[in-house]
Amino acid sequence: MKIAILAGGSGTRLWPRSRSRRPKQFLDLAIPNQSLLQETVERIRPLVSVEDVLIVTSRDFVRQTARQLPDVPKANILGEPYGRGSAPAIGWAAATIMRRWGNETMVSLHADHHIARPDLLRQALVAAARVAAQGHIVTLGVVPPRPHTGLGHVQRGQLLGQFDGFSAFTIARFVEKPDYERARQYTDSGEYYWNTGMFVWQTQTILQEIDAYMPQLSAALAALQATIGTRLERRTIARLWRDLPVQQIDYGVMEHTRIGAVIPVEGLGWNDVGDWDSLADIRKADEHGNIIAAEFEGIDTSGCIIIGSGRRLISTIGLKDMVVVATDDAVLVCPRRRDQEVRSLVERLRLANKEKYL
Amino acid sequence: MKIAILAGGSGTRLWPRSRSRRPKQFLDLAIPNQSLLQETVERIRPLVSVEDVLIVTSRDFVRQTARQLPDVPKANILGEPYGRGSAPAIGWAAATIMRRWGNETMVSLHADHHIARPDLLRQALVAAARVAAQGHIVTLGVVPPRPHTGLGHVQRGQLLGQFDGFSAFTIARFVEKPDYERARQYTDSGEYYWNTGMFVWQTQTILQEIDAYMPQLSAALAALQATIGTRLERRTIARLWRDLPVQQIDYGVMEHTRIGAVIPVEGLGWNDVGDWDSLADIRKADEHGNIIAAEFEGIDTSGCIIIGSGRRLISTIGLKDMVVVATDDAVLVCPRRRDQEVRSLVERLRLANKEKYL
Repeated sequence: MKIAILAGGSGTRLWPRSRSRRPKQFLDLAIPNQSLLQETVERIRPLVSVEDVLIVTSRDFVRQTARQLPDVPKANILGEPYGRGSAPAIGWAAATIMRRWGNETMVSLHADHHIARPDLLRQALVAAARVAAQGHIVTLGVVPPRPHTGLGHVQRGQLLGQFDGFSAFTIARFVEKPDYERARQYTDSGEYYWNTGMFVWQTQTILQEIDAYMPQLSAALAALQATIGTRLERRTIARLWRDLPVQQIDYGVMEHTRIGAVIPVEGLGWNDVGDWDSLADIRKADEHGNIIAAEFEGIDTSGCIIIGSGRRLISTIGLKDMVVVATDDAVLVCPRRRDQEVRSLVERLRLANKEKYL
Repeated sequence: MKIAILAGGSGTRLWPRSRSRRPKQFLDLAIPNQSLLQETVERIRPLVSVEDVLIVTSRDFVRQTARQLPDVPKANILGEPYGRGSAPAIGWAAATIMRRWGNETMVSLHADHHIARPDLLRQALVAAARVAAQGHIVTLGVVPPRPHTGLGHVQRGQLLGQFDGFSAFTIARFVEKPDYERARQYTDSGEYYWNTGMFVWQTQTILQEIDAYMPQLSAALAALQATIGTRLERRTIARLWRDLPVQQIDYGVMEHTRIGAVIPVEGLGWNDVGDWDSLADIRKADEHGNIIAAEFEGIDTSGCIIIGSGRRLISTIGLKDMVVVATDDAVLVCPRRRDQEVRSLVERLRLANKEKYL
């Protein structure tokens, strides 16, 4: 089993902790002193050797990645010259595995998610590998503990069978982020799962499916193939990636493939750490319902998310259900229920030529 | 005319901008790039030469004072070894004036107040000097533009006469900070004025009154007198001040004296910059009613007081009538109407052994 970890993202909703030069996968948002990326690697360490882990990230993040993962071989860190979405990143990783080891079971994970039950994830991945060995493209679906409007969903089809205690189903369809009413129906139906973006397949299978549904990417991978591991690889990928469009594997392959399968997992404690409010599901609140990761002193403060950095003190009086984030050079204060607007704030800063804060 | 400026205070309600080692008189709270202390000196520059200005402050603040007021002679900065309230500070200044220049008109001002109309203050001080020349201890009273529960008041007595367009009255009594209903009555009556702590007297007069009502302080000043300006002064004051109790001139002299007078001044724009909310009276709000002294970017933010330092960015979403203050090592977030509780917060920090933030 070879594992590819996608670590090239750079979202804005966790600003000002998450920065364009240090996005959330490099931050210890869920577990103190362990970045989400490190957490992702720790999670699969019992399954594979670090020699068998590839990290696909932006060329700009290769150094940070290597610093955070000192025992991952440098050659296993693939730095993309341009961010082109998950499909090219997965394609490069698959081509690299193919070239280096031949046809293998391949797992694709995101570097910026938190999972409360890593043992359960590993069991599910082992089961998924068995389904993948039958020629399927397998995605892990999270049995929704509650309606969620911020995530795409997978609807299951026919039962394929039981694998190590997990059920596998064909995929009926993928659906976009639903509105609340629809999300509630999905949750109640028992047929829909959160689309986590975690996949298991055989290298040859995914490369075939890319060839079938994403011919431009497939051609690029074919041109790249012979240069992998040579001095030409860097220059070749710069040329090829420049011309590729941004494409996600979900739209590019998963929505079209006829060999998709989903394994529902219950009680995984999966969280995409998508916004400040999500920390309330991950970190333990104190007796006042505050999530605190900072030097903090508060009076009459409850239900707040308080995130600091270094030894900066955050002090509050009379706050309820607010987010307060302080970094070396920026402070954010907003109600928890409005934390989606952080994205607009970041956009404003960009327009106001205040990129140095991004 | 000699002017003594009291600059030894160290309040806590403007934390975290105001710090124990850098209290508010040294901060540019009212006018950008001009500390309240500098503002106080600028205000009286048209009246006297800086040679005639004494600053009484804590020994710990002598250097900061000298740095902020480079043209005030070093010998004019009196550094107290212990803070003993306004009475000893005024007493030392009066004794110094007496020893250096003999009997003079003496003005006593606070270093941490803002005055919107300094021209009017100077006119009032000139008028007060004429009243003081008749043997009175004169205080300037502010005609209250609105009820204020945070200030002591002076009730006027008989009219003493007109002086350069100002009326002077005897003092009926001093009253402590009133509750709201009383404050409203005071404002409506037209007979009560805010007690500003600005005084004018002849040096000999105040020293006589201290002798009459504050015998311990008077004895200390007598012991100090001969050492003023000599190498012995520093050691002598350390010995004398160690044993003095903390005493304010208002309670020590003003409430007892029979020669008090008050000159009401209207439209002075006087403000004791006592808390964060007071900045709303001093600084101009933007079109959303925000007072901003920071790098700032906000969405749907109104009626807020936003204070930064350096190039730190403060960003807010959906805030109304809040105070947000960010310094190098501390952040404060609280509703404007609860800004009095900053004092409790500071007390908590002290109890939690977090003095480094104070």
